Amino acid sequence: MAWGQNISEPCLLKTGIGCPAVSAGDEAEMGVMSTVSSGQHTRPMCYLLLLMILQLGLHTAEGVWPLPQTLISSTERFHLSPQAFYFGYGRQSAAQQGCSVLDAAFKRYFALIFPDYTSGRWNLFSDKNEKDGTLPFNVDKQFTVEVSVDHNDCDGYPNESSSERYNLSVFSGRASLKAVTVWGALRGLESFSQLVYQDDFGSYFVNKTDIKDFPRFQFRGILLDTSRHYLPVQAILKTLDAMAYSKFNVFHWHIVDDPSFPYQSRTFPDLSSKGAFHPMTHIYTQSDVRRVISHARMRGIRVLPEFDSPGHTKSWGKGQPDLLTPCYKGGIPSGTFGPINPALPSTYHFMATLFKEVSVVFPDSYIHLGGDEVDFSCWKSNPYVRAFMQKMGFGSDFTKLEAFYMENIVNITSALNKTSIVWQDVFDYHERIPKDTVLHIWKGTPASYYAELSRMTKAGMRVVLAAPWYINHISYGQDWHNYYTVQPLNFSGTEEQKKLVIGGEVCMWGEYVDATNLTPRLWPRASAAAERLWSDEKQTSNVDMAFPRLQDFRCKLVRRGIQAEPLYVGHCKQEYQGI
Amino acid sequence: MAWGQNISEPCLLKTGIGCPAVSAGDEAEMGVMSTVSSGQHTRPMCYLLLLMILQLGLHTAEGVWPLPQTLISSTERFHLSPQAFYFGYGRQSAAQQGCSVLDAAFKRYFALIFPDYTSGRWNLFSDKNEKDGTLPFNVDKQFTVEVSVDHNDCDGYPNESSSERYNLSVFSGRASLKAVTVWGALRGLESFSQLVYQDDFGSYFVNKTDIKDFPRFQFRGILLDTSRHYLPVQAILKTLDAMAYSKFNVFHWHIVDDPSFPYQSRTFPDLSSKGAFHPMTHIYTQSDVRRVISHARMRGIRVLPEFDSPGHTKSWGKGQPDLLTPCYKGGIPSGTFGPINPALPSTYHFMATLFKEVSVVFPDSYIHLGGDEVDFSCWKSNPYVRAFMQKMGFGSDFTKLEAFYMENIVNITSALNKTSIVWQDVFDYHERIPKDTVLHIWKGTPASYYAELSRMTKAGMRVVLAAPWYINHISYGQDWHNYYTVQPLNFSGTEEQKKLVIGGEVCMWGEYVDATNLTPRLWPRASAAAERLWSDEKQTSNVDMAFPRLQDFRCKLVRRGIQAEPLYVGHCKQEYQGI
Repeated sequence: MAWGQNISEPCLLKTGIGCPAVSAGDEAEMGVMSTVSSGQHTRPMCYLLLLMILQLGLHTAEGVWPLPQTLISSTERFHLSPQAFYFGYGRQSAAQQGCSVLDAAFKRYFALIFPDYTSGRWNLFSDKNEKDGTLPFNVDKQFTVEVSVDHNDCDGYPNESSSERYNLSVFSGRASLKAVTVWGALRGLESFSQLVYQDDFGSYFVNKTDIKDFPRFQFRGILLDTSRHYLPVQAILKTLDAMAYSKFNVFHWHIVDDPSFPYQSRTFPDLSSKGAFHPMTHIYTQSDVRRVISHARMRGIRVLPEFDSPGHTKSWGKGQPDLLTPCYKGGIPSGTFGPINPALPSTYHFMATLFKEVSVVFPDSYIHLGGDEVDFSCWKSNPYVRAFMQKMGFGSDFTKLEAFYMENIVNITSALNKTSIVWQDVFDYHERIPKDTVLHIWKGTPASYYAELSRMTKAGMRVVLAAPWYINHISYGQDWHNYYTVQPLNFSGTEEQKKLVIGGEVCMWGEYVDATNLTPRLWPRASAAAERLWSDEKQTSNVDMAFPRLQDFRCKLVRRGIQAEPLYVGHCKQEYQGI
Repeated sequence: MAWGQNISEPCLLKTGIGCPAVSAGDEAEMGVMSTVSSGQHTRPMCYLLLLMILQLGLHTAEGVWPLPQTLISSTERFHLSPQAFYFGYGRQSAAQQGCSVLDAAFKRYFALIFPDYTSGRWNLFSDKNEKDGTLPFNVDKQFTVEVSVDHNDCDGYPNESSSERYNLSVFSGRASLKAVTVWGALRGLESFSQLVYQDDFGSYFVNKTDIKDFPRFQFRGILLDTSRHYLPVQAILKTLDAMAYSKFNVFHWHIVDDPSFPYQSRTFPDLSSKGAFHPMTHIYTQSDVRRVISHARMRGIRVLPEFDSPGHTKSWGKGQPDLLTPCYKGGIPSGTFGPINPALPSTYHFMATLFKEVSVVFPDSYIHLGGDEVDFSCWKSNPYVRAFMQKMGFGSDFTKLEAFYMENIVNITSALNKTSIVWQDVFDYHERIPKDTVLHIWKGTPASYYAELSRMTKAGMRVVLAAPWYINHISYGQDWHNYYTVQPLNFSGTEEQKKLVIGGEVCMWGEYVDATNLTPRLWPRASAAAERLWSDEKQTSNVDMAFPRLQDFRCKLVRRGIQAEPLYVGHCKQEYQGI
C-alpha cells in the first residue's frame, strides 16, 4: 500500500492501521485488524513505524476499497511502464484468449491503470523522466499480470452462487491473479488497478502485495428507479461502471412503477407506448435492455428486474385495459383506479404472459415481484372485488386477498424456473410463502429491521437488507457514516439464521433523482455500503480510519470520470480530467 | 403565456392564475395577483376560463421566472422562424451596433431561443412542416426584437445603482424592448427568451405579451466558496450563465479562506504558490479573474470579491510570514497560528497593499471584508497581543481588538473609494462603523435575523440578508419551499428601515461541494430565492402556484445545459440534450 512507500525499511503490515495487541504471527488472529503478520516488529517499534507512516504517507494514502479480507503489503515497489505492461492468461487457466469477459476487462483496466497514457497526456509527464535515465529503475522491464481461473464461464452470466474469491500476488515483474471464476478474476483486476499509483513525476508504481479476498455477502446490490424519472441508458451504464469499482454485483432495476412504464414489452407494446413519459424518447427498447445486461455481465453484475405489483402499477393501466381495479364512490365507478385487480382470471393470464417474456429477456435467476405498499381502499370500494372475497372465504381481511394474489404471481415465476424476491410486506402479511423466495427488508429503524431479520431467518427465509441504505434520503454533512456503521448481522439469531442474510442493497429511489444529480448523490456514499457488504466488519468498523481511504477512493472515482461528490474540504490531485 | 395558447378566444390575464376579487380595471390593484386587467370577463366566467386553462395547458405551463412585476399575456400567438428572426437596436437607442454587451447578448439569446436550430436538429423537426406549407402562418414573415436603452453604458460595469427596469411588448412581427440601461435590456432579453416555446412539431411561437418589470431588490447575490474546494473557472462561468437565467446580479466570490488561497496575487505571489491546494492547477490567475469578471459583466452581474479577515485566514499564513498570530502554550509559541495579528503595524501595511491590488483587479465598488467568526483564544494566549491590548486601553475585551482591526481595514478600503461589506459579527461587536458600510446577515433562525434586521436598519445601516438562503444545507424533499417562503421585510421597522434592506444572497459554502455536485445542488433551489428577490411578494407567496412554473423553468435550465435537479417525479420534454 502506497502509504508505506516512503519508508525504506521493508515492513509487512496487515491491512488497517494499527499495532499488535497480541503476539505477532498468531495465525488465529489473522482476521483481526491490528495484527502484524510478519512478526518482524514489537509493539513499541510498530507504533513508531505507524507514526512515520501516518506522518509521511497519510495524505497520499492509497489502497483498495472495499478493503480486502487479507492484504499484506511491502514498501518494495515496482515500476510499471505502460509500454511494457501486459495482461495474460496463465497456462493452467480454464479461460484463455477469446474469453469475452476477460479480454474486454484487460482493455478496460489497462486504460484505468494508465489514465495519462491512454488520454495522451503521457508525454507531458513521464516519458521525459524515463528517457533521460535519471530514475533508478529499468524503464523497459516487462510487467505481466497473469490471470488464471478454474472455470471457463466466459460466456455465462454471474449468478447467486458465483464465487468471487481471488488471490492476487504482486512480485517483481509480474502479478499472479487466481480465481475460481472469471467474476472473481474481475474483482481481482479491480483490486490490482487500485494498487497502482503515480509518483509526483507521473511514473507508475505498484508495491509488492499479497491479497486473499472474497466477499462477506453474496448479494451486494444497487437499486435504480427508472419510473419516477427516466434515466438514459448512458446513465445506467455509467452507474454499472462505478458499481464495478466498488465491487457491487447486483443491479436491481426497479424499471416500472406508478409514474411511468418505460420498459418496451414485445408482447404488450402499449404498456410503454401509453404508459411511458414519452413513447419514443423515454423508453427502454429490447436492445437498450440487452445493452444494459451485456454491460453488466462484462463487469460481473447481475441484472435483477423488478415488476412491482399489485400496487405501484398506475402506469400499467394506461396500456392494459381492465388490469387495474376500478375504484367506486357512491356505488358507481369513480373513474380512478387502484392496484391490479386480483379478482379477474384475465389478470393472471396477463401477468403470466408478461413474466414469460421478462424471464427470457432477463437471464438472471431472480425476478423481483415487489408486493409492497398495497393500498386496500380501492379494493374495498369495488363490489366485484368484495364479492370475490366472499366467494374465496377471505371475509373482510384484505391481506388475504393480497396474499392470494402474490401466491399466484410467485407460482407463475416458479413455473418459469425463477427465484422470486419480494418486499417484506409479503412476509408480514403472509408467512406461508415458498421457502426459496427471497425477502427484501426496506422498512424502519435498526430496532425494527433487526426484529424483522430475526423473524424472517427464524422462518428459514433468505433475506436481503435494504432498510439502512435508502441512499436517496440525504442530509447535510458526512452522512456516509450512517451507511458505513450498519451491522447487518447484529440481530438476535443463531449462526444458521445469520447465514440466511445473503446481502444488502443500496436503494436510490427516484422521487428527487434523475440523470442531473444521480451520480454525485450515489457516489461515494454507496461505496461506504459497498465496504460493509464486501469486507470484514471487524477490520472496517471505524469511520475515522475509513475516512482517508474513502477520500482517496473517491478521488480515484473522479479521475475515472465518475462525478463522485467530496466527503469534506480538500482536493484531489487529478480532479476534473475525467469529468 | 403558453398555458393559454390552446384557447381560441383572446383573453388578457395578469400573471398568476386567479380570478378577480374586485371590479376589473382597478388600476390601484395592478399589483395584486388576482386582478384581470382587461376587464373583459366577470368573475364566474373567469373561473370557467381558468378551469379551461388549467385543464388544457397546465402540463405545458410556460412563463417567465422570476415572475415579472406586471405581465399581460394574450392567447394570440406569433410564429417565429429562426431564418427570419432578428435582434436590432431602436433608432432612439443610446446604444447601437458595436455595443459589446448587447451585440454578444443577441448572439447568445438567438441560440437560447432556437436551440434546435443552432444545434443542427432543425431539419429533423420543423423545416419540413414549414416547407410543405401545411401550417397556417407565413413562414418567412420577419420578426424583429427592437432594443432601445436610454444610456450607452456598453463599456461599463453594472453597479449598485444600475437600473434593471425594462418594458417588453410583443406584437405581430416585432417586439419592443425598452430599458434605461443595457443591464435592464439584458433582463428583458432573458424574459423574452423564456416567452418563446415550441409546439409538438418543433415550431417556435411567442404570444402577444406586455411586460413591465423591475427588481424588488437591488442586490441579488450568489456566493461561491472557492477555498474549501477549488472550482474550475469553467464551473464558475457556467454558474454565471445560470445566474443570468434567474436574474441574479451579484457573484459574491468567497475566493480565499482557511483551507486554501487560490487567488494568484501580483503583489504577493507566495500567497497562492504556498497557500493554494496546488500552486499550478488550483489557482485563479489574473487572467482567470479577468475572464470571470468579463463573463459576468456581459450578463449584467457584478463580481464582489471577499478577502475575509482577521479569522478564516489559515492559508494566508503559508505565503506571508508574520501575518498570523502565533499561539502560545505554557509561555512559548506552540507552533500553531490564529487569526491575523492585529498588533503589528506590518499587518496593516500588508493589508493595504493587498487591497490596493484587489481594488484594481475587481472593478466593483464593493469589497467584502469578512470579519466573521474570529476565535479569540489564540490572541488571548499571545503575550505581545495582550501587551498591545493594555497599551491601547482595551483591557481584556477582545471584541475591542477585533473592532480596532476591522476599523483599520474599513479605512483602507474607504481610502480606495470602495464600499465595504462585512458579515454581521462586525456590527454585533462594534456599532461604531462607517454608515456606508453594508452589513451581511448570515446567522440564525427567522426570529433572530428579523431582530438583527431591525437593529441594523434602525442604526441606519444597509443590509444584505443571507441567513435564510444557506443553500449548501440540504435536506430530503422539496426544500426549495424554505427558500421561496422567506419574507425578507417581515421585521418590525419603519418604511425607511425596510428600504435599507438592499437585497439577499444565496450562499453555497464549500465544505461538501465542488464541481462534481455544485450545479444540481444550486439549481433550481437558488431560483426559488431568485423569485423572492426579484418579484412582487404578494404575487408569489404560494408554493403550489409556483411549483409548475418552477418545474417548467427547471426544464428550461436543463435544456440550456444546466444540470438542474428535478423538483419531483416527472420528466422534461427535452431532458438530456444540453447535458
